[in-house]
Amino acid sequence: MLMTDLLAKKRDGGELSGEEIRFMIDGYVRGEIADYQMSAMCMAILLRGMNDRETLDLTMAMMHSGEVVDLSGIEGIKADKHSTGGVGDKTSLMLCPMVAACGLRIAKMSGRGLGHTGGTLDKLESFPGYNIAIGERRFIENVNRIGIALIGQTADIVPADKKLYALRDVTGTVPSIPLIVSSIMSKKLASGADVIVLDVKCGSGAFMKTEEQARELARGLTRIGKLAGRKCAAVITDMDQPLGRAVGNALEVKEAISVLRGETKGDLLELCLTLGSCILTEAGVAADREEARAMLRATIESGAALKKLSELVEAQDGDARDVYDTARLPVAPVQLTVPSETAGYLSHMDCEKVGLISMHLGGGRVTKESEIDLSVGLVLDKKVGDRVEKGESLGTIHASTEEKAREAAELLRACCTFSDTPVARPKFIKEIIE
Amino acid sequence: MLMTDLLAKKRDGGELSGEEIRFMIDGYVRGEIADYQMSAMCMAILLRGMNDRETLDLTMAMMHSGEVVDLSGIEGIKADKHSTGGVGDKTSLMLCPMVAACGLRIAKMSGRGLGHTGGTLDKLESFPGYNIAIGERRFIENVNRIGIALIGQTADIVPADKKLYALRDVTGTVPSIPLIVSSIMSKKLASGADVIVLDVKCGSGAFMKTEEQARELARGLTRIGKLAGRKCAAVITDMDQPLGRAVGNALEVKEAISVLRGETKGDLLELCLTLGSCILTEAGVAADREEARAMLRATIESGAALKKLSELVEAQDGDARDVYDTARLPVAPVQLTVPSETAGYLSHMDCEKVGLISMHLGGGRVTKESEIDLSVGLVLDKKVGDRVEKGESLGTIHASTEEKAREAAELLRACCTFSDTPVARPKFIKEIIE
Repeated sequence: MLMTDLLAKKRDGGELSGEEIRFMIDGYVRGEIADYQMSAMCMAILLRGMNDRETLDLTMAMMHSGEVVDLSGIEGIKADKHSTGGVGDKTSLMLCPMVAACGLRIAKMSGRGLGHTGGTLDKLESFPGYNIAIGERRFIENVNRIGIALIGQTADIVPADKKLYALRDVTGTVPSIPLIVSSIMSKKLASGADVIVLDVKCGSGAFMKTEEQARELARGLTRIGKLAGRKCAAVITDMDQPLGRAVGNALEVKEAISVLRGETKGDLLELCLTLGSCILTEAGVAADREEARAMLRATIESGAALKKLSELVEAQDGDARDVYDTARLPVAPVQLTVPSETAGYLSHMDCEKVGLISMHLGGGRVTKESEIDLSVGLVLDKKVGDRVEKGESLGTIHASTEEKAREAAELLRACCTFSDTPVARPKFIKEIIE
Repeated sequence: MLMTDLLAKKRDGGELSGEEIRFMIDGYVRGEIADYQMSAMCMAILLRGMNDRETLDLTMAMMHSGEVVDLSGIEGIKADKHSTGGVGDKTSLMLCPMVAACGLRIAKMSGRGLGHTGGTLDKLESFPGYNIAIGERRFIENVNRIGIALIGQTADIVPADKKLYALRDVTGTVPSIPLIVSSIMSKKLASGADVIVLDVKCGSGAFMKTEEQARELARGLTRIGKLAGRKCAAVITDMDQPLGRAVGNALEVKEAISVLRGETKGDLLELCLTLGSCILTEAGVAADREEARAMLRATIESGAALKKLSELVEAQDGDARDVYDTARLPVAPVQLTVPSETAGYLSHMDCEKVGLISMHLGGGRVTKESEIDLSVGLVLDKKVGDRVEKGESLGTIHASTEEKAREAAELLRACCTFSDTPVARPKFIKEIIE
């Protein structure tokens, strides 16, 4: 088999066989197929497309390029969630304990943040002592004992994706549905869950800018998940403004805890109820989404979800008290409220730039190696559709120095656009795809 | 400027500016743009296309990547011809002396053969002593003195094409009209001729398999040539069977000389008259193609073309007597006629395989470094449409050993397909594009 023949086939709109796709991925990981051939193939796939069979074969070939996590030692139904990445997305911190409190098993591997988006691992490390690398044995034991474990990705999961994504990033071949689907799903499938729910973000702060693109991706992800024999659903959600109000690691943990305490409602709670109800119905634990939502609400009202979070923190070498007393979490030395210089209705917030403010404050990574400050970030007081009077607070900056706080305040003001006439609040949950 | 932005632009169907194209080609030649980015760009260009303006800018950027030949020291109108490559194509050996005998200037750089196609340089070296590397000063002097010089390409012509073609060859990105046009025309333009005629082959032995593909390429080539300010025409010719009857270096030289002596007519003469008439009319030396054909025929009848060839050979360190006495040229030790085992009408000849027979006999290059035997090859006795009786000769093999001759005879028989009913002779000149 020759890579040049596969290139010609896909270039001319042909369908690659499973054998051909495995040859290509295996050869690429082993270094037998050159970057310049693989990048041309990615461009051909981007422009010619792949059908579901090819995308499934690509996903499986990538999944089998490395270690596949064996969760067979875990009793019960394993659930996982994936988000395509956004600003202020602390959903896993609430959703995982809520679902675990409903009796499902959460054996989840997460990533770190990069650029304007945050990562669950960084947020969890806001709990002093939290250990993201407890090893496979404790990982399995903890899930069996308390129903939940959240760790960092092991090094050997889907090496094909690491190599391929780095290549796609510099060759204009990122925005291809089959390539994105295989990248996401190979990792999710390798992580071993029975039920997978996908949060596909759409809007200015997301990779998918339009609802149409997000829908195409969501459908591709769920189709491949199901073809691979997993229970799978996707939710398309708005990312035209940050999710919730807090952006920054410890600040987001505090906001998540306030949701689990029942003190904060809004988009964050709604997202947890929607994603969670998809998981519970797909798992067959609830008859329908209404019943599922009631079960999930009950985990908040009873305190079971918060207790589950405290068990998680304790089981991974943190201190359970930090969950009940958030004053114990990292606090930035400077807090600065940002009064609005304009009156009007907040009509638009540049979501990506809000994420970058947190990065500039030291709360996000410029490169994979960056050290981050868990305490910094910002908390929004206004969201799109809100009425703002002149001098009223747009939000609070949490910074390491006065100077950084003042710079961030200016940046936050520049993220906001106002209208003289009332502005509708954006629809947050756009579609559920099952 | 970032290559990733250019990749995204072309990927999404956008038009690259001249500045962007120059940035890309210059950066690639300097090694600042990686192979994996350039191969993805080639695939995007192949699938998204380029308009004439982009193709012209690409051609000019490639042309300026290296040395541009300065023919300003040559008096008169300089003409050049390019063929897209075929089997048995010895046209330059006849056409160049004929056109030079009509008063035009031929200052031509040619290439060597590779694979199943031959090269003009190898054929010229069948004249013992012929020097393809006479240096720029003698090259110009010879053209001014006798009207003709035929040398090897200098090393510094269009380095971008050398690098890019090697990359395209292994990334499935050869068959793109804008990429082929820029590859051919950058070299032709860099070679400095005023009038350029292109012989675009089509059929089983050619790169362009269908007439439609050949027409698209021919139109692209002439459009870009004209946009670059040159006189330009193209002829689409059949390459479903070898051109003429001889395949192999010295054998082809002998056939060419027999055409210049007026002893051989057929497709070879017709091609020389057609290509030559395009050159003479584009140059304004003849009023129309009929007048041009008459002028070209006269160079054969008067012996002027043959004399011009002898002057060329002598001016480049060969012996002029070899042109008048072809028995002095290399002769293979073994000649074997190939009787047909079938009776019928010759309906098809696998043209590429006929070219490979010559290569297997030692007359063609497997790699660029191969040494070749100038004496070997084959001479066909039958062409498509001919009636063949059982035992009648299909052709003669010229080989270095009896064993090789017998192998080649079997291969030649396998190249021929017969029909019980009469077969039309294929139309040889398919279209002239001006």
